[in-house]
Amino acid sequence: MLRREFVKTLAAGAAAPAAERPNFIVIYTDDQGYGDAGCYGARDMKTPHIDRLAAGGARFTDWHSNSPVCSPSRASLLTGKYPHKAYVPQILFSRPGFDVPGLRKGERTLPAELKKLGYRTAAFGKWHLGSAAESRPMAQGFDEWFGFYSGWTDYYSHRYYTLGGVPVFHDLWRNGKEEFRDAEYQTEMLAKEATQYIGRQKAGEPFMLYVAFGAPHYPMMAPEKYTSRFPESMDRDRRMHCAVMAAVDDAVGSIVAAVEKAKLSSTVIFYQSDNGATREERADHAGRPYRGGSNAPWKGYKGSLWEGGHRLPGILNWKGRIPAGLTPQGMGMTIDIMPTFLKWAGGSAPDGVDGMDISDWVLRGGKCPREIAYWEYEGLGAVRRGDWKLLENWREGLGTPAERGLWLVNLKDDPGESRNLAAAEPKLVAELKSELDRWKASLPPETLKPAARPGR
Amino acid sequence: MLRREFVKTLAAGAAAPAAERPNFIVIYTDDQGYGDAGCYGARDMKTPHIDRLAAGGARFTDWHSNSPVCSPSRASLLTGKYPHKAYVPQILFSRPGFDVPGLRKGERTLPAELKKLGYRTAAFGKWHLGSAAESRPMAQGFDEWFGFYSGWTDYYSHRYYTLGGVPVFHDLWRNGKEEFRDAEYQTEMLAKEATQYIGRQKAGEPFMLYVAFGAPHYPMMAPEKYTSRFPESMDRDRRMHCAVMAAVDDAVGSIVAAVEKAKLSSTVIFYQSDNGATREERADHAGRPYRGGSNAPWKGYKGSLWEGGHRLPGILNWKGRIPAGLTPQGMGMTIDIMPTFLKWAGGSAPDGVDGMDISDWVLRGGKCPREIAYWEYEGLGAVRRGDWKLLENWREGLGTPAERGLWLVNLKDDPGESRNLAAAEPKLVAELKSELDRWKASLPPETLKPAARPGR
Repeated sequence: MLRREFVKTLAAGAAAPAAERPNFIVIYTDDQGYGDAGCYGARDMKTPHIDRLAAGGARFTDWHSNSPVCSPSRASLLTGKYPHKAYVPQILFSRPGFDVPGLRKGERTLPAELKKLGYRTAAFGKWHLGSAAESRPMAQGFDEWFGFYSGWTDYYSHRYYTLGGVPVFHDLWRNGKEEFRDAEYQTEMLAKEATQYIGRQKAGEPFMLYVAFGAPHYPMMAPEKYTSRFPESMDRDRRMHCAVMAAVDDAVGSIVAAVEKAKLSSTVIFYQSDNGATREERADHAGRPYRGGSNAPWKGYKGSLWEGGHRLPGILNWKGRIPAGLTPQGMGMTIDIMPTFLKWAGGSAPDGVDGMDISDWVLRGGKCPREIAYWEYEGLGAVRRGDWKLLENWREGLGTPAERGLWLVNLKDDPGESRNLAAAEPKLVAELKSELDRWKASLPPETLKPAARPGR
Repeated sequence: MLRREFVKTLAAGAAAPAAERPNFIVIYTDDQGYGDAGCYGARDMKTPHIDRLAAGGARFTDWHSNSPVCSPSRASLLTGKYPHKAYVPQILFSRPGFDVPGLRKGERTLPAELKKLGYRTAAFGKWHLGSAAESRPMAQGFDEWFGFYSGWTDYYSHRYYTLGGVPVFHDLWRNGKEEFRDAEYQTEMLAKEATQYIGRQKAGEPFMLYVAFGAPHYPMMAPEKYTSRFPESMDRDRRMHCAVMAAVDDAVGSIVAAVEKAKLSSTVIFYQSDNGATREERADHAGRPYRGGSNAPWKGYKGSLWEGGHRLPGILNWKGRIPAGLTPQGMGMTIDIMPTFLKWAGGSAPDGVDGMDISDWVLRGGKCPREIAYWEYEGLGAVRRGDWKLLENWREGLGTPAERGLWLVNLKDDPGESRNLAAAEPKLVAELKSELDRWKASLPPETLKPAARPGR
């Protein structure tokens, strides 16, 4: 969009009636890579509804999760804080029962803060932020909850199958009660819950709805109606990945349609994946590294601090307020959602939030407020300032061996992070390393230790 | 049934037209305990179709699998040999691909021998006898095959979820080709395959159909239409176990109905479980030993050589030939099926078969031909002669620690195997121990070593 058109659109927005408190719908996918949507360059996928959502608002091309893995990414979404500060620096263990600590008691989450502002709140789908009493969705600000606590479940039987000697367990709950929805395909089941919830809402009574799809996280499976949309000649992993994403896309379509049908007040829809696509062997059907997901054009996978691990599809759609076709220049992050949404709801971010209010950037053509960003995971670190990024240790993805050292890149010149400029730029390295160290030193030290056994 | 009535029934059978070669249907369940059917004393289950099948023919109360675990039990069924002699002494590893050795090339199986006699043959369901080319169903005598190679799969998604670092894999195949039947409930899917197969058959063209249900093996899951048949107040494990068995029972009903509808020639139906109910933790949803299955009134579980591990529901139904209401006195075993069926088909057992032709026993009121029987599994041994049984080492079930020593019981006086008479009966112990040693020495020595990594 040209600057001139942008200003015109903003003027039209300004002429609209004074903003009511908007509804918020957050759609969070799981292990969807940057290259796993049509509007992000995937030519073999069909994601018309996601593409339309992006075309109707802001499609970020420099949007980042605050972690390259699941639980910490979600903790940042709901708290607006770097994962360590939310005390969820690691993937939380998945196990039966209700005793996995995660989000702490009294954490000031986005839904809890919105409730104070008069919002209704609901969460459907994957939680993975703890199943101990104080960590559950309804203890963390959600009025309603339907979904699973663990990192993933079978798409049909809603069982979690661990790899660590823990028995298979069923994991699907509505509020405090177990619910069996055997043979219902998870993505469709969650879409149904979401659209029914939207259908029950009334204009003038704002809500926040968090829909966290298990898709496209393994175990990869989809009904024939989705697989048949893609040619049998495709690579099997990729074909299934496309099918699983096709179901997500249909679900997004049904959510958008439900919003339109319900004639609600103004509704903000935010869409993000939790981390990049994975190469884990266990995601594959045949004992090979999984190759269904794509982080193209970025390097690295889930669990890595190369761009592929954390640069993600991020879409922010607010009809009449965010101009259609916007591709914001500058770096946005998951932590920004909380303070921004609280602002739009008429409130403000609580103390300790790391995220930034991006209203001016996306609503009024202002400058991206972020100058520097940090990541830390399992001994890997990264800091980004402008186009420069310094990695401290690196690896390909989750479970692959790490190499130790410093790696400096200029993402503008070398988006593939292929050339290490650390030796050539010692002064910049020293500066960025010192920034990274300062940030790491600011984190609560105890949470740098593994908080829980990994359960993925 | 009184002896007088029995003789009358036999006379009626004798007056029937000269026997054609009958069809054979073998229904094999998985981890169904002795106490897991109404006709075997379960008061909380509803298995009217299985009960009717039993009432219409022979219901064995002293029927035994030749192994307390899955793969060896199935090897004995198809070869008529003790598991070690069929070179499947252990549970076979479950893994993706087609390279798990199991049944050996050239093994003379029941379906292969029946084919020589002009039979059509088909297998639907669980195989678990190897996925290497030479071990597959179609290399071992089956014309048609639809099912899974591994020890179990999810009932809806047909994926195998290992506990040993092997990735999740899809495991459902028709002949050589993978088939996706996501969200179809396994038991119903197999019943459909079986009834369609029966519907395609013609009188005078005999067939053997092997239907191996995954049920009631974990992971325990069933549609609401089955769970709702049992009160919510029941123990959750047991309620689900009953529901899973209710689906099997409906499937048995549909198979019997298909036989009646098809107006086929005379059809023999044999029904057996592969081993006793399990106590494994991984079968449970909540990290406790599984208590859904029942081996009542017997002691021990799957993987044990107490009666509960191998004494099983065994039903043999042949309308007009086996008298209704028969409860044969004496010990029958899985290995007997092959030689008996081959006899009834007009052939005879190949060399090396350990099983016995039980025709005289079940058709003509003759004496049970077996005087002695042996078991061996993972260092446990057992020998049975009449009511006396000697155990060499013992354990509660699969994965529980074994105790070393000799344990002698008289099953008539002490069916619960509670009192060790070894010290009181040294002469009998010595005799039976020597019999057991002789039998063990007769087994191919190399197969006493673990043949494959366990995959259960």
